[in-house]
Amino acid sequence: MKTIIPNEIEIKDLHQFIVGAIAPRPIAFASTVNENGQTNLAPYSFFNAFSSNPPILVFSSNRKVKGNTTKDTLHNVEANGEVVINVVNYDIVQQMAIASVSYPSDISEFDKSGLTPIASQFVKPARVKESPVQFECKVKEIITLGEHGGAGHLIICEVVCIHINENVIDDRNRIDPNKLDLVGRLGRAYYVRASGNALFTVAQDQEIIALGFDKLPNHIKNSSVLTGNQIGLIAGLTKFPTEEEIADFGRNTPELAPILGLKTNSESDFYQQLHLLAQQFILKNELEAAFKTLLQ
Amino acid sequence: MKTIIPNEIEIKDLHQFIVGAIAPRPIAFASTVNENGQTNLAPYSFFNAFSSNPPILVFSSNRKVKGNTTKDTLHNVEANGEVVINVVNYDIVQQMAIASVSYPSDISEFDKSGLTPIASQFVKPARVKESPVQFECKVKEIITLGEHGGAGHLIICEVVCIHINENVIDDRNRIDPNKLDLVGRLGRAYYVRASGNALFTVAQDQEIIALGFDKLPNHIKNSSVLTGNQIGLIAGLTKFPTEEEIADFGRNTPELAPILGLKTNSESDFYQQLHLLAQQFILKNELEAAFKTLLQ
Repeated sequence: MKTIIPNEIEIKDLHQFIVGAIAPRPIAFASTVNENGQTNLAPYSFFNAFSSNPPILVFSSNRKVKGNTTKDTLHNVEANGEVVINVVNYDIVQQMAIASVSYPSDISEFDKSGLTPIASQFVKPARVKESPVQFECKVKEIITLGEHGGAGHLIICEVVCIHINENVIDDRNRIDPNKLDLVGRLGRAYYVRASGNALFTVAQDQEIIALGFDKLPNHIKNSSVLTGNQIGLIAGLTKFPTEEEIADFGRNTPELAPILGLKTNSESDFYQQLHLLAQQFILKNELEAAFKTLLQ
Repeated sequence: MKTIIPNEIEIKDLHQFIVGAIAPRPIAFASTVNENGQTNLAPYSFFNAFSSNPPILVFSSNRKVKGNTTKDTLHNVEANGEVVINVVNYDIVQQMAIASVSYPSDISEFDKSGLTPIASQFVKPARVKESPVQFECKVKEIITLGEHGGAGHLIICEVVCIHINENVIDDRNRIDPNKLDLVGRLGRAYYVRASGNALFTVAQDQEIIALGFDKLPNHIKNSSVLTGNQIGLIAGLTKFPTEEEIADFGRNTPELAPILGLKTNSESDFYQQLHLLAQQFILKNELEAAFKTLLQ
């Protein structure tokens, strides 16, 4: 392991390690206005939701590492406490990138990015028409995290209204990630497209007590065949099969017969073959069959 | 658009719209200890970096929507102000899922998840050996965002030491996202794997003033052939080619000859064909050739 003490390295290197390691980050495409009504639009990836009740989003407009200057977004929310946070999907990522350019304050990034401002219901800043979800927010508090280049500000926003494009909502009244097609930010110039084959699901119910690794026999925990994720799927089950279920499974699973024959001759070959067969069941998502195999 | 006023819908529905729309979210795999030395490990996706100088990470341990209870992690950081935030890569996601189960306080999620605790240098909580990046943190402040189920807490953490597995660092001393292979959280049971084909790069320099949409001729801005992202790539260029460069390109690009012949007969056919050819250049990432094509 490489060990880094923050104040012993250059800020730009520290910054790159942080944005490389803390990822993928959601993007707040923040629309604000200044005291003269001049609109501003800029993307921020030091951003997330932090509460549902009340609904709170937080983003940071950081002091630039180079030059230690602050940005128009920060001036605007300090001046009038209003912001619309628009999400960024794959279809608008290049237009978002243009809005990230440091144009002078009197230039609107709506004009530069070609994105369309539409009126909000509760706040002055415009929403981005092309963004599939738009959060109208009132800024509750701004917390300054430092005075030097690279210092952030926690801009704490309460959501007063959400607009969601009907096309991204499924039959169960939930957002479909494939229809939404969001992008997330990583380090350097990298982004991730959060849809399609990159998505997967983990079906662990937090309220149902799973067995856990500590309850598994040693040969499973220490398997040289199964990966941590595969053992994790077994450890995520909520109960052991009964002796009878294990015996029944042994009798009724033809692939097991030759493996069971190894048990008395070579314990290491037996477990190796048993784990390989269990792995096949895991890959087919037949977790109980895998568990009954491992318990022969 | 569907319009939602937060206090007019059920918290569980509001929560799902928020976690579905604000994604992909990075995961803080938080290791803490209580006053008796009992270890705790739990994943939180209301989490991000917010500052590089000082290096600040913020995560929220929310009151549960069902039951309005708080979690062990919150008790522990309130008691002793220390936490190790470990990142979650694809190889440990199932073990992370087991640590998300609501085990009683006297059970260690290290035992349940089968992950290995290793001693930290500056704080009491253990690091997760299998995690490729571990942030040892001191909690600076905890801000309570509400009193009801679903309410978050901003747990503001200053990084005192970072441990990075050498295997995820490239020759240029930067984290390689493909080697790190992080996962991000979306709504419901969805996760995204942030590596491989899901990654893409956007090469927009924020300090170099790009032309922007407003400087492009109308036929480009209003193209029925080019997508917003493709027009965005052209708008992201920093200067127009000269008259001479455009004329030279016209003479030396054989594919243009039949298209230029359309100019006097049918303006709409001309622009349609011109944009289709420009699109081919954009798909080959030859942006200047695309721009010179569009300016014929």
